[in-house]
Amino acid sequence: MDAKKIINQILEEKGKITDVYFVACGGSLVDLYPVSYFIQGESKTIHSMYYTSKEFVISAPKTLTKNSITIVCSHSGNTPEAIEAAKLAKSLGSYVIVFTNNEKSKINSDSFNVIVYPWGDEISVQDEPMGESYALMNELLKAQEDYCEYEKMKDGLSKIDGVIRKAVQVEKDSAVSFADKYSKEPFLYIVGSGASFSQAYGFSICSLMEMQWINCGYIHSAEFFHGPFEVLDKDVLYILLMNEGRTRVMDERVLKFLKKYGSKYAVIDTRNFGIDIIDKDVVDYFNPFVFYKMACLYREELAKVKGHPTSVRRYMGVVEY
Amino acid sequence: MDAKKIINQILEEKGKITDVYFVACGGSLVDLYPVSYFIQGESKTIHSMYYTSKEFVISAPKTLTKNSITIVCSHSGNTPEAIEAAKLAKSLGSYVIVFTNNEKSKINSDSFNVIVYPWGDEISVQDEPMGESYALMNELLKAQEDYCEYEKMKDGLSKIDGVIRKAVQVEKDSAVSFADKYSKEPFLYIVGSGASFSQAYGFSICSLMEMQWINCGYIHSAEFFHGPFEVLDKDVLYILLMNEGRTRVMDERVLKFLKKYGSKYAVIDTRNFGIDIIDKDVVDYFNPFVFYKMACLYREELAKVKGHPTSVRRYMGVVEY
Repeated sequence: MDAKKIINQILEEKGKITDVYFVACGGSLVDLYPVSYFIQGESKTIHSMYYTSKEFVISAPKTLTKNSITIVCSHSGNTPEAIEAAKLAKSLGSYVIVFTNNEKSKINSDSFNVIVYPWGDEISVQDEPMGESYALMNELLKAQEDYCEYEKMKDGLSKIDGVIRKAVQVEKDSAVSFADKYSKEPFLYIVGSGASFSQAYGFSICSLMEMQWINCGYIHSAEFFHGPFEVLDKDVLYILLMNEGRTRVMDERVLKFLKKYGSKYAVIDTRNFGIDIIDKDVVDYFNPFVFYKMACLYREELAKVKGHPTSVRRYMGVVEY
Repeated sequence: MDAKKIINQILEEKGKITDVYFVACGGSLVDLYPVSYFIQGESKTIHSMYYTSKEFVISAPKTLTKNSITIVCSHSGNTPEAIEAAKLAKSLGSYVIVFTNNEKSKINSDSFNVIVYPWGDEISVQDEPMGESYALMNELLKAQEDYCEYEKMKDGLSKIDGVIRKAVQVEKDSAVSFADKYSKEPFLYIVGSGASFSQAYGFSICSLMEMQWINCGYIHSAEFFHGPFEVLDKDVLYILLMNEGRTRVMDERVLKFLKKYGSKYAVIDTRNFGIDIIDKDVVDYFNPFVFYKMACLYREELAKVKGHPTSVRRYMGVVEY
């Protein structure tokens, strides 16, 4: 994918972009959320919002116009709601980019700019939807408003694979011991903030609920103190995602509280993985890449202990719904 | 509060409004979310976003300019993050409206347009933050873009108290029987969609986690099928919030699945409470008022069975954090 070329084409066709919508379901939505958060935090000229596909179709924003870009992701390429969302956005004049892993899927249509991405452990995250969406939006912000952190974002994207590799090595033993200790817990909470709130969500609904049939909730680190913390006692299990960057202060506040009043918690801290090689002005946006891989690591270790392969489903793709 | 007068003053001062930000923590954020959703779904000229206060302070949007309105709600008026958020918005030139129940609180300052609201069972929801925020935004959309559903929204606001009263009568027995049957459950999920996704969240984090120390997760009805439903079996408890309006189709899909594969679930359906007296073009935005009161009803019945008054806290306002 040539991000600069795509953005130049779009700007030539559209003149100016006012809105970027990110639309997907489940794990694919988790991939796009951080990029929407990036635009919300960095752009002076563009608004952004993320939607689960069906909600987008039912309640499409009135600001979805011909000066918008809609980015839709469907891994299988056959999710009906995602296809519906891409068609709706196109019909309203939006420029539609579709990410899919499946070239032969129903969403692959000439109506959209379809980017077929590879997937797997050996693939650079720069070639996957989150990385490619960041690259696209970084080019858009540079072209439209001369975004001052453009080079730092590019530099970060070139370095994040190395941080992820280190994270897998550093965290491996902790994941093994977590699975040993806690594989029989009735439920747990994942806590996170900033761009990585998406990863608290994805860790919970994809890695644990979907792939391990473990009951799980997700909580924003700042919201923890406005209700959720009242359930905390020595018997309740938490995984805290500690971000590097501006939102770390919210995660640290949770950690302090867990240390004082909790007893069962794991902390996954991107600071332990050398993420500080990425500039502090943009590092916030790179934590989600790392936490995604950490969720994979933890679920694989749980799968071994539980004897429950992460590929097993009882409903998804099995029954009608 | 004279909503029209406030909006006229703001438009006189600002000329045009491009953004409205809703900022609060926990239960107060739950109150504001539907109004942000309303703008996202209805306005052609205004963008809107909601933030938990600390995240807003740390990662303020670059589109927060002098042509914005920031609405902050703090029930106690002393939440440090909410005060910080209001000050930040003001310093960036935003027009700041503050809702608080406490006239003598720290957030009551001449820098903001402070609206002190009453609170309690006998108060019309029109005089509480959600109702007043809807009234303000309805006036804003009318004045700035001649919003075509203005009269229907006004009519809905005048009728919603009656729907809530009916809901309390109709749902009472179900709440009693839910509490009897399920007060000892280790955890449950609240499922909802649209403007009422906020109420799935609030029911979970405020009514159950905070006030009853019950472990709980919240799930969007559309996202249910993209991961979360894999934990469903005959032993897992759900409360489904069935909306009247466009998003009902998502809730109905969940209900169908729960009926087929689940066994322990309660359904709270606003259609049973005569909400159809509100015009179908805007009824979506009124479901959250009803679900809030239903969460109060269910938690009160749980409190009786558990012997755990809803006012008891172990951390909030008790220890340092």
